[in-house]
Amino acid sequence: MKTRSTSSEKPLRTGAARAAAILEARSVAIVGASADPGKISGRPLAYMLSRGFTGELYPVNPMRDQVQGLKSYPTLAAIGKPVDLVIVGTPAAQVEMVIREGIEAGARAFVVFSSGFSELSDEGAALQGRLTELATIHDVTILGPNCLGAVNSETGLIASFTTAMEETLIKGGGFSLVSQSGALGAYWMDICLRSGLGFGKWIATGNECDLDAADAISYLADDVQTRVIGLYVEDIRDTHAFRSALGRAAEAGKPVIVIKAGRSSLGAAAAASHTGALAGDDVLYSACLRQYGALRVDSLGEMIDVARLYLFDSVPLGRRVAAMSVSGGAGVLIADASEQLGLDLPALAPQTELALAKVLPSFVKAANPLDLTGNVVQNSASIASALQAVAADPGNDVIVLFVGLMHSIATAFTDAIAQVKKQTDRPIVVIWIGAKDETVALLQQANIPVFRDIPPAMTAIAGTVRLAQLREAAIGQKSLNERETRRGKKRTVRPLAECHSKALLRDIGQINVPVGVLLRAQDQAYDIVGTMAYPLVAKLQADSLLHKSDIGGVILGIENEQQLSAAVCTLKQIAASNNIDAIGVLIEPMLPFDHELLLGLRRDERFGPTLTLGRGGVEVELDADVVSQLLPLDAQQVEGMIRSLRSAGRLDGFRGQDRVDVAALSASIAGLCQSFTDRPQLAEIEINPLALRGDQAWALDAVVSQFDE
Amino acid sequence: MKTRSTSSEKPLRTGAARAAAILEARSVAIVGASADPGKISGRPLAYMLSRGFTGELYPVNPMRDQVQGLKSYPTLAAIGKPVDLVIVGTPAAQVEMVIREGIEAGARAFVVFSSGFSELSDEGAALQGRLTELATIHDVTILGPNCLGAVNSETGLIASFTTAMEETLIKGGGFSLVSQSGALGAYWMDICLRSGLGFGKWIATGNECDLDAADAISYLADDVQTRVIGLYVEDIRDTHAFRSALGRAAEAGKPVIVIKAGRSSLGAAAAASHTGALAGDDVLYSACLRQYGALRVDSLGEMIDVARLYLFDSVPLGRRVAAMSVSGGAGVLIADASEQLGLDLPALAPQTELALAKVLPSFVKAANPLDLTGNVVQNSASIASALQAVAADPGNDVIVLFVGLMHSIATAFTDAIAQVKKQTDRPIVVIWIGAKDETVALLQQANIPVFRDIPPAMTAIAGTVRLAQLREAAIGQKSLNERETRRGKKRTVRPLAECHSKALLRDIGQINVPVGVLLRAQDQAYDIVGTMAYPLVAKLQADSLLHKSDIGGVILGIENEQQLSAAVCTLKQIAASNNIDAIGVLIEPMLPFDHELLLGLRRDERFGPTLTLGRGGVEVELDADVVSQLLPLDAQQVEGMIRSLRSAGRLDGFRGQDRVDVAALSASIAGLCQSFTDRPQLAEIEINPLALRGDQAWALDAVVSQFDE
Repeated sequence: MKTRSTSSEKPLRTGAARAAAILEARSVAIVGASADPGKISGRPLAYMLSRGFTGELYPVNPMRDQVQGLKSYPTLAAIGKPVDLVIVGTPAAQVEMVIREGIEAGARAFVVFSSGFSELSDEGAALQGRLTELATIHDVTILGPNCLGAVNSETGLIASFTTAMEETLIKGGGFSLVSQSGALGAYWMDICLRSGLGFGKWIATGNECDLDAADAISYLADDVQTRVIGLYVEDIRDTHAFRSALGRAAEAGKPVIVIKAGRSSLGAAAAASHTGALAGDDVLYSACLRQYGALRVDSLGEMIDVARLYLFDSVPLGRRVAAMSVSGGAGVLIADASEQLGLDLPALAPQTELALAKVLPSFVKAANPLDLTGNVVQNSASIASALQAVAADPGNDVIVLFVGLMHSIATAFTDAIAQVKKQTDRPIVVIWIGAKDETVALLQQANIPVFRDIPPAMTAIAGTVRLAQLREAAIGQKSLNERETRRGKKRTVRPLAECHSKALLRDIGQINVPVGVLLRAQDQAYDIVGTMAYPLVAKLQADSLLHKSDIGGVILGIENEQQLSAAVCTLKQIAASNNIDAIGVLIEPMLPFDHELLLGLRRDERFGPTLTLGRGGVEVELDADVVSQLLPLDAQQVEGMIRSLRSAGRLDGFRGQDRVDVAALSASIAGLCQSFTDRPQLAEIEINPLALRGDQAWALDAVVSQFDE
Repeated sequence: MKTRSTSSEKPLRTGAARAAAILEARSVAIVGASADPGKISGRPLAYMLSRGFTGELYPVNPMRDQVQGLKSYPTLAAIGKPVDLVIVGTPAAQVEMVIREGIEAGARAFVVFSSGFSELSDEGAALQGRLTELATIHDVTILGPNCLGAVNSETGLIASFTTAMEETLIKGGGFSLVSQSGALGAYWMDICLRSGLGFGKWIATGNECDLDAADAISYLADDVQTRVIGLYVEDIRDTHAFRSALGRAAEAGKPVIVIKAGRSSLGAAAAASHTGALAGDDVLYSACLRQYGALRVDSLGEMIDVARLYLFDSVPLGRRVAAMSVSGGAGVLIADASEQLGLDLPALAPQTELALAKVLPSFVKAANPLDLTGNVVQNSASIASALQAVAADPGNDVIVLFVGLMHSIATAFTDAIAQVKKQTDRPIVVIWIGAKDETVALLQQANIPVFRDIPPAMTAIAGTVRLAQLREAAIGQKSLNERETRRGKKRTVRPLAECHSKALLRDIGQINVPVGVLLRAQDQAYDIVGTMAYPLVAKLQADSLLHKSDIGGVILGIENEQQLSAAVCTLKQIAASNNIDAIGVLIEPMLPFDHELLLGLRRDERFGPTLTLGRGGVEVELDADVVSQLLPLDAQQVEGMIRSLRSAGRLDGFRGQDRVDVAALSASIAGLCQSFTDRPQLAEIEINPLALRGDQAWALDAVVSQFDE
């Protein structure tokens, strides 16, 4: 139950530098180091001694001369020289004092395991606030409190008491993790170590009084050892820094694979009690991850499966899969999974079919998926030749080879595949049901990733294809400046009446607003309306009145002067009987249109300005079709959002309806987005419906809300 | 690459009895038995000798006196008494002769491993046809050819050469499998044996010249050992027998979990080349499985995960999940997965909260999901008390307990959970990331199923909930008589013109048909139309003309006599210029309506009569919303189909539209279904649109097709 620090003041050094102060520490003091290697305060020392930390270690324990065979110091000052990192596991009440002593002794970074801070109580939160202050004032890095720490597999730094490595040695690798949950971080480490993938850097950020997930991602984006970044996130307070960090990773070409807890309403409610995160933010988290090039997955298993393809250099360049299988049924299941995941199984090239005919028996039909049949699979040489032929086909991006059991011939088989792998750049992915661990190890030594069932393999391949698209789109994705996205406490919001909202929209000028007439209390309709063409619509106007039609405040289809007078009279009576302080009645022509969208611009407390687009009309309540993204957005990105709606096909003139000029519409909306961003007093713009006809977009109804100063 | 037999003649004994003849054989002859236990013809004998087959074994090999230590017989006749089962692995050309010899010697059942039949060539298919004849004439059972055989874990009968048990002993269990793929069957067996689940009966049906998957399911429905039935299916020829078998399993209360390959168009194409199955049938396979109470899954992993809950008596009675977790983040991920899968996480009862407060520290908040925190988890007694409190809460159907690693306290922890399990009927499901095999075994001994990640566990729970619903709905699901569902070769179909189609529908009488007038060539519109109320619609009528509107053959919104004459004239010209042999012009009133559906009744070659319902109108082409089921269907089932449409909410009078009387509509459609079934000359009825207004349903356009005799 973590509650992260909310301070918006940051120390001067970059996030990456501050994370480096922890992870690249060469000298480490452990305050309260225990002689018992099983205790929390004994484990880091025991781990580093047994796993060969390459730096210096200084146990600090005034009760002992020696701890775990090392000289023990009574205080941090007694070490006699500054250390890079101090590990603190003392009771919460003593942590501030220890950090002050450390700062005085010249330490630049601290890992605080101790709990009892903001996750526990208001007093704890106050204690934690003082740690944040210390970090800021003295420009030191603090990881935690209430965290499981950090591990660097290159140097053997284990500033953690995790039990995940109790039974394994550290194995270095290209996969690094940032986790806001120590427990999930530990499971990840356990899986990575037991599966032989190893890992690079590992950071569990806990309460984030200072160093946060964004800082850690920035660091990993630059870290040479790290090739794939995993992230488990519950709540990001500083979404500006988070976006920058994701952008940095995208530019460095490093895939970021993310578990964001709280996808569902149930989960968001659970997360709210766990981290204080707001329910309903999840769709914006998804948008943020997508826009800044990160892949969102649902489980540790899926994260590790996607990473596996990168770690074994087996990422396909596209979505075209060539499947080979020792069982026809498995080939069909691969085809089923591919289609569901948006992957293609293109036909083999004619020359590939010829080449296969030469190396396979006549009863094997050259096709994709290729059913090798149980007979052929006994012959490793044939398999190798077939694999070579398929790898030479320019029409696929990855070869998926399905096998099962075959323990007696596993070695010959893996040798044959490994030989082919040496001669081709085409990624080869093996699905081996019932594979033995040693077989998997042999194949992975040859840089061939192995999965143990069809769905995880195909999901992982589809994940890398998606990641490539996301990363490409994310390169150059701009962020708003920090002022725009980092906001303090909730401000009250005042909605404007439709007539005032539309005046503001007319002033902005990106979207057409119907030319209407506002009848004040004293006006007579027929004096004012003049030459407006019937049919007309009459709408009651008041600042407090957001849902006009619910009280009968909208009268449509007014065909003549007489009906108009009656309508105005009715609306005035409605205002009176509902005690509404009306501004007047807005009269507008009824405009014909082909389609309607809804458009919402909103300044989110966490993510800053956001755009929501959706299909309009009454049906959306039955079957919603909406998409949200974070600003800034250019016209092309807006067009992408519109095209991603399920109903987008309607806009292209489906079945005789007029075609909408989606590019022009997108440019107008992008312009509106920019204007919204440029006007910080605007809290929200909602246009519903945004009526579309040909190359025209009209705001038929609109509510603009402003922040109260 | 199997191709199943297509003969529709069946022997006299029931499917179950014919499968029993294989699986319950007490004396087995192995023709061509090899002395080499590694050879296909040596393995069954070697397996049965080493795994302790409880019956009699007779190697038949004229070249040897002894095989694998047993006396060898030169011929089947030489055994001197009838055996129950003969295993045949000779070359294809000799199989018929061996079976004839066996029949003469009194054998009642045969397993034929040999390939080279219908999967290979036309000659092979002819050979296979002769085996089918032998089985029919002599009323013996033949499993195969081209099959991996059958295993009975109770008797140790291993009439198979699968390598899946090369390294393991047989372990009995309640999970049985029928597989049309030997390879996938072997992987299943391997997983079941290695995971300690064991298995009951195992049947790989191969080419199905005689015994087929439906027969095997019938047998397992009655088999006392079998509690859960797994099925891998590519293609079912006799869907009548298949439905009966599924119905029998549903009535016996045995869940059937099915992998049907070919879900996607890619997969269907691959399956077509693999088994000759028709593409596009998949939606009807899904309907068939759903209607007869079977759960369709996508992978072996998912099949075994769902089965696990049954095998450890841990099937929830409903969808209400209580989650307990040692990591807050994992609790959130469980909540996310639950919502996505349609499971609930209801609030804890007040008395449960009180009970938890007594046994847990104050910093643990009593909630669902319950975050036990890492502190509490060290205390097994607290966990046990908390588990007991949650198990006593009447508001949940299953408890999901998430843990990870914790190897040092695993034994104390599992003991504590096992103790609680003894005192409650509430299913307890453990998700243990990083669990050791021995920990899993301990928990499973206490009848607690263990999963190693969140998604598989929650998917399995949701699968059992769905299975219970499907089974309940399937009890009493009627089948049509065999004549209706088993059809021979494709027949040609003749569509009728709209006017004739509507005459037929009027005759059937379930759905309203607009009262129209057919103008023949010589008629003058104004003579005939008489008192029909404008607006009218005029439609060109011809038997060959299925898509009238594509050539302008439909003229809407005719407001007066003059327009009517012009419309009729135009349509006659269109007929002339398109060389259409027109019947005339159909004039109908334009009926106002609130909603439109499309309705299709069709006699499918494989499944017999089927009903398709969907949202009507032009939008379906952009975003289809349709559902298909097999007949017979009662009104309640039709209503279920309508309610399952995404757009169903519109029919309930959404946003001021008139409410449709869905019950009355469903009764009419069910009546139409019955009429369709009763008229075997009808190939198809398509009504599009079926216009709905209040309690009225009107066939505004319709095409009825008949079989050519």
